[in-house]
Amino acid sequence: MSPNNKTMLKLYHLPISFNSRRVWIALLEKGLDFESVPMKLNGDQLTPEFLALNPFHHIPVLVDEDFSLFESLAILDYLEAKYPTPSLVPNDPQGLGTVKMINLITLNELLPATTPLLRQSMGFTTLDESSQTKAQEKVATVLSFFEKSIGDQPYIVGKTLTLGDIVAGTMVGFLPMIGVSLTPYPKLSTWIEHLSQRESWQQTEPQPEQIAEFRETMQKLIAQRSS
Amino acid sequence: MSPNNKTMLKLYHLPISFNSRRVWIALLEKGLDFESVPMKLNGDQLTPEFLALNPFHHIPVLVDEDFSLFESLAILDYLEAKYPTPSLVPNDPQGLGTVKMINLITLNELLPATTPLLRQSMGFTTLDESSQTKAQEKVATVLSFFEKSIGDQPYIVGKTLTLGDIVAGTMVGFLPMIGVSLTPYPKLSTWIEHLSQRESWQQTEPQPEQIAEFRETMQKLIAQRSS
Repeated sequence: MSPNNKTMLKLYHLPISFNSRRVWIALLEKGLDFESVPMKLNGDQLTPEFLALNPFHHIPVLVDEDFSLFESLAILDYLEAKYPTPSLVPNDPQGLGTVKMINLITLNELLPATTPLLRQSMGFTTLDESSQTKAQEKVATVLSFFEKSIGDQPYIVGKTLTLGDIVAGTMVGFLPMIGVSLTPYPKLSTWIEHLSQRESWQQTEPQPEQIAEFRETMQKLIAQRSS
Repeated sequence: MSPNNKTMLKLYHLPISFNSRRVWIALLEKGLDFESVPMKLNGDQLTPEFLALNPFHHIPVLVDEDFSLFESLAILDYLEAKYPTPSLVPNDPQGLGTVKMINLITLNELLPATTPLLRQSMGFTTLDESSQTKAQEKVATVLSFFEKSIGDQPYIVGKTLTLGDIVAGTMVGFLPMIGVSLTPYPKLSTWIEHLSQRESWQQTEPQPEQIAEFRETMQKLIAQRSS
């Protein structure tokens, strides 16, 4: 892939975060050259320089010359408008609306349902049986909906890769790591297998040492808060 | 405003909800004729008919002939793509990205900061001083950011009404009702005064009896959960 932008983009990102990875993948899929600024959550998100970019100190932030933007879904829409080729959104209103809905379901339904399971798998907390069942039921509602959305197509909405695959796919592909099997969802399983072969997926896959480092940072933060 | 669509749209909405009101205003601003299906949260969101439209039983849902969609921000993007005139998004990538960021800040930063204040003002809970201060500080960070975004322009992004005004404006305009003064933000105050004069704002303004009915429904739900 050759860069199709002449100016330098800069991405402040946390390599193991879903919020960051979706932007990173979109940049790669669009063949955009960018400077990577990896963050560590060790206070680097609270420096005056970073707070000037994002007063809510959330990651990622994209800087494009003198313009900066945060909120990952907003960054994805900006990239699509500014660098439209190759397109990552369907060109019909129904396809576009469905992609946007899938992205919001991922953030508003799947992420909150997954968070307690993730915290448990990282050893930060132990869920009682009722909380565990509730989380798994919520995750199942999302996965059934996505399974139906794929139908007989190779991607989550239609015949080509879209932001829906990037946003939902990175999160769904992670579920087996926290004990949620995709076996009951044959179409999702094939879809994830297919996505995980893409260069953009492989290049952005969180590495075991990054996950271990993240776990350690979080454990320190949790210990600080409860002391 | 004369309807510019020939087919009938149907909006399932909760008239006093921010999520619903932003779609309702967009339909009015675009001059789209639609059938209004007001919901009551008394179980009507759990009927088989509604769950078939949205398995997560959240409101609003838009139905456009045989196509249905939920997640309010996705519905706004769909309406913009399907019924582009008058446009409610800037036509430059930076303006578009900024509008999308403002919408996501409203949902991801302002809404969670506001929720405890809203629950307190409705009499559902009493906040201790530290939680109250924390919520007010978060709200202030958002309001300062929005004040800066308006700058010397009449709207939150640029010279014309956009989805940013609709999403952020409906929520910011509500803050004085739950004890957050806009007086320290002169530009926000003028902006809200300006927006509240629009026909679409006045037509969708929650009525005192709707707020009273909502408070009663919520109190019953809270009592059921704690019994």
